[in-house]
Amino acid sequence: MPVNLPIPSAADLCPVPGIRWGVVEAGVRKQNRKDVSICVLDEGSQVDAVFTENRFCAAPVQVCRTHLANGDAIRALVINTGNANAGTGASGLVHANQMAQAAADALGVKATQVLPFSTGVILEPLPIDRVRAGITQAAGVLEADAWLTAAQGIMTTDTQPKAYSRQCVLGGTTVTVTGISKGAGMIRPNMATMLGFVGTDAQIAPALMKGLAKRLADQSFNRVTVDGDTSTNDSFVVMATGVAANAMVTDWASDDGQTLLDALLGVSRDLAHAIVRDGEGATKFITIEVGGGRDTAECLKAAYAVGHSPLVKTAFFASDPNLGRILAAVGYAGISDLDVSGVDVFLDDVQVAQGGGLHAAYTEAQGAAVMAKSEITIRIELGRGSARDTVWTCDFSHDYVSINADYRS
Amino acid sequence: MPVNLPIPSAADLCPVPGIRWGVVEAGVRKQNRKDVSICVLDEGSQVDAVFTENRFCAAPVQVCRTHLANGDAIRALVINTGNANAGTGASGLVHANQMAQAAADALGVKATQVLPFSTGVILEPLPIDRVRAGITQAAGVLEADAWLTAAQGIMTTDTQPKAYSRQCVLGGTTVTVTGISKGAGMIRPNMATMLGFVGTDAQIAPALMKGLAKRLADQSFNRVTVDGDTSTNDSFVVMATGVAANAMVTDWASDDGQTLLDALLGVSRDLAHAIVRDGEGATKFITIEVGGGRDTAECLKAAYAVGHSPLVKTAFFASDPNLGRILAAVGYAGISDLDVSGVDVFLDDVQVAQGGGLHAAYTEAQGAAVMAKSEITIRIELGRGSARDTVWTCDFSHDYVSINADYRS
Repeated sequence: MPVNLPIPSAADLCPVPGIRWGVVEAGVRKQNRKDVSICVLDEGSQVDAVFTENRFCAAPVQVCRTHLANGDAIRALVINTGNANAGTGASGLVHANQMAQAAADALGVKATQVLPFSTGVILEPLPIDRVRAGITQAAGVLEADAWLTAAQGIMTTDTQPKAYSRQCVLGGTTVTVTGISKGAGMIRPNMATMLGFVGTDAQIAPALMKGLAKRLADQSFNRVTVDGDTSTNDSFVVMATGVAANAMVTDWASDDGQTLLDALLGVSRDLAHAIVRDGEGATKFITIEVGGGRDTAECLKAAYAVGHSPLVKTAFFASDPNLGRILAAVGYAGISDLDVSGVDVFLDDVQVAQGGGLHAAYTEAQGAAVMAKSEITIRIELGRGSARDTVWTCDFSHDYVSINADYRS
Repeated sequence: MPVNLPIPSAADLCPVPGIRWGVVEAGVRKQNRKDVSICVLDEGSQVDAVFTENRFCAAPVQVCRTHLANGDAIRALVINTGNANAGTGASGLVHANQMAQAAADALGVKATQVLPFSTGVILEPLPIDRVRAGITQAAGVLEADAWLTAAQGIMTTDTQPKAYSRQCVLGGTTVTVTGISKGAGMIRPNMATMLGFVGTDAQIAPALMKGLAKRLADQSFNRVTVDGDTSTNDSFVVMATGVAANAMVTDWASDDGQTLLDALLGVSRDLAHAIVRDGEGATKFITIEVGGGRDTAECLKAAYAVGHSPLVKTAFFASDPNLGRILAAVGYAGISDLDVSGVDVFLDDVQVAQGGGLHAAYTEAQGAAVMAKSEITIRIELGRGSARDTVWTCDFSHDYVSINADYRS
C-alpha cells in the first residue's frame, strides 16, 4: 500500500507531441503482463541520460552509453521488464544490441539510434527471442496517448504505475512535460533501481540539453533511498522533441528557462518521490533535511546515514520516537570532526534535540504525535556552516522483508 | 533463536585469578533483571581498551577515555544496562563520573581508577540513584567465579549470555583467558553495539598491552556487522592481572606470545561471532571472505557492501540463491576502478560467478543446497591483487523488524 500515492489516470497525463509509445505483453518472465515497451521520438529530438554508477552495470546500460557517445540522433527507446540482462557477460551485450537492432529494423533507423533498457532479475540470460518479438510487435501499436500504459509496461515490484504531467507557458506557447518511472526496491542514489523517462516538446538549445539529466537527477532521483542498494540498471532519460513552437530556450536563468526547468524538475521529483512512496513495504514518506553543514557533501553524508539506518527506519515503522537512533546515525555518518554539541534535531516543527542532547521542552507525546503521521520531516542542523541538502526515504517494515524474501518466487 | 550458539555453562568458564565480579538487580529500567555489574582487578593489573568511533559517543565512553589517558592504574569497571547514558549532555557526564565515584568509594580507590560503561536506550537520563545503589551493592558480592553471571548482567536485547574461556600453557605455566560480550543490534565495525570484556592472568609486558585491544578488535569485534548501525557506547576492554607465574611475554612473535595471542584472539573472535549468531532476528551465520584485492581496505569495502545489503540479507533469510544481489553489492562498494570481468563468487565450495557473470557449470540446485544451511561462506575474489579480509554477518528477517520496532516497549 503506497504512501499517499494516487493512481495516475490517463486523463491527467498529457501526450508529448513528437513522442509515441507502444507497449505489449511479450511473456518475458510471466504471462499476461505488459513487459516490452518502445518509445519512438520524432526526427530532430534530443536525448540526455544518466546511468547507474554500479561497476556491475548491466549490458543495456553499456550499450546505451556507447550509442549516446556515438553521437547519432537517438530515435527510440526499448524497454523490457522481467529480466535485467545484468551479470550476463558477452551474451548479454549481444542481446542488448539485438534489442536495439530489432527496434531499428521495425522503425527503419540505425541500431545506434536506439537505447535499450532492461529491469528485473539479475544473472539470468535474457529470453531474447521473446523480447525481440515483443519489440517488433510494440513498434506496430504506437500511440501518442499511451504514457499510462507505458508506466504499467515498465513495472517490476511496483504496486502501481508512476506517471506525472505538467504544462507551462513559454512566451505564450504551452509546452508539456510528461514522465514515467519504475522502482520500489534496490533504491539509492547514483542511482535508484529505477528507470525514469521524461519527455517534453519544448525547444531546448543543445548546450542546455547536455547534462540536463544529471542536473534533474541530482535534485530528484539521486536524492531518494529505500534500502541503500544501488542497482545495476538504473537509468534516467530526458527527451526533448522540439515540436513545440516556443522560442528556443538558451539559458536556464532566463524566465522561460526557469519556468521550463521548474516543470522538468517538478515532474522528475514527483517521479522520484513516487518510487519512495511505493518503496517496498513503505508505510511512511520521510523527508530528511540536513542544514548547517560546511558543504552539501557532509549534509548528504548525515542524511544518508539516517536514511539508511535500519534502526531509524524500523523505529519510524513502529511510530516510536526512539530519536537517539537519529543522533547515533548522525554520529557515525563519517563527519570526522563533527562537534555533536552543536547538533539540533527537529521532527516536523518539534525540536527534539538541542546541542546534541534531548531538548529541555521536548515531550514524548510531541514526538509520538509526529511519528503517527504518514509524512514526516526530520530536520537536522549540524551547526557548522550554511550548506543544506535533502534526501527522501521511507520506513522499513515487515513487508520489506517479505517482498524481498519472495521476489523471485 | 540464535544460530548455533550454545548457552555457556558456568563449568566451562574458568575464573581469571586477579579478577572478581559482582552483579546485582538494581531496577535500572526493568525489575527482576541483573543490570548493574562491577569488575574488580587486583593491584598491578593492566588495562587496554578501544571505543566507538561514533561522534555521539556516550558520556561513559568520554569518561573512560579521560581516565585511561590520565594514567592511574585501572582497578575496576562498572557497567549498567537499561540506559546508555548517551545524548544526555552535561548531566550525562556528571552521572558517568558519579558511577566511577560510587565504585571508588566502595573499593577504596580513586574515581580515576574506575571505568564506567552503560548500554541500553539512548537520549534518556540515567537513573543515577538506582545505578549508584546498585554499584555499592555489587561491590559487596564480589566473586572470582562469576563470569557467567556477569555475562547475564550486561545483556540488553541479547537472547542469551555470551562467554568463552580458553587456557594455554606458557613455558609450563597454565594461564587463562575468559571473556564476556553483549550486543545483538546496532552492530557494525568501529564498533558493534557491544560491550566486550576479556581478562587474563598472564603476565604481559606493558609495551605489548598498549594497543592490544585494537589488535584483537580488528580481527574480531571490528569485523562483525548485523545492521550497519554503529552505536554510541561500544567498548572493548582487555585486562591482564599478571597474577600467573609465567615468564613475562615481551614479544607477540615469540612462542609464548603467539600462544597467548591465539588464546586472546580465539576468545575475542568467539565473543564477536556470538554477537552475530545472536543478531536480532538472525537465522543464519554468514562469513564473507574477500580476496584478490589490492589492499585490505578494498576487500573490506566489498565485504561490508555485501554484508550491509538488505537485499542480500533478505535473500539469505529466504534461502533464495538470488546471487545477482551479491554482484550488485560488490559493484556499488566504491571500488571505483573495479573490473567486474575479473570477479568470481563462491558459495561455500560452489562457484556461482566467474568473470562477473554466472559460472557455466553453476546450477540453481547447487546454490539452493548451500543457502539451506545455517552457516554459509560467501567468498568473493576480486582478481586484482593478493589482499584478503573477512567479515561476519547474519541474515535479515521479519524478527529483526519486530525486535527493533518494539525495543522500547
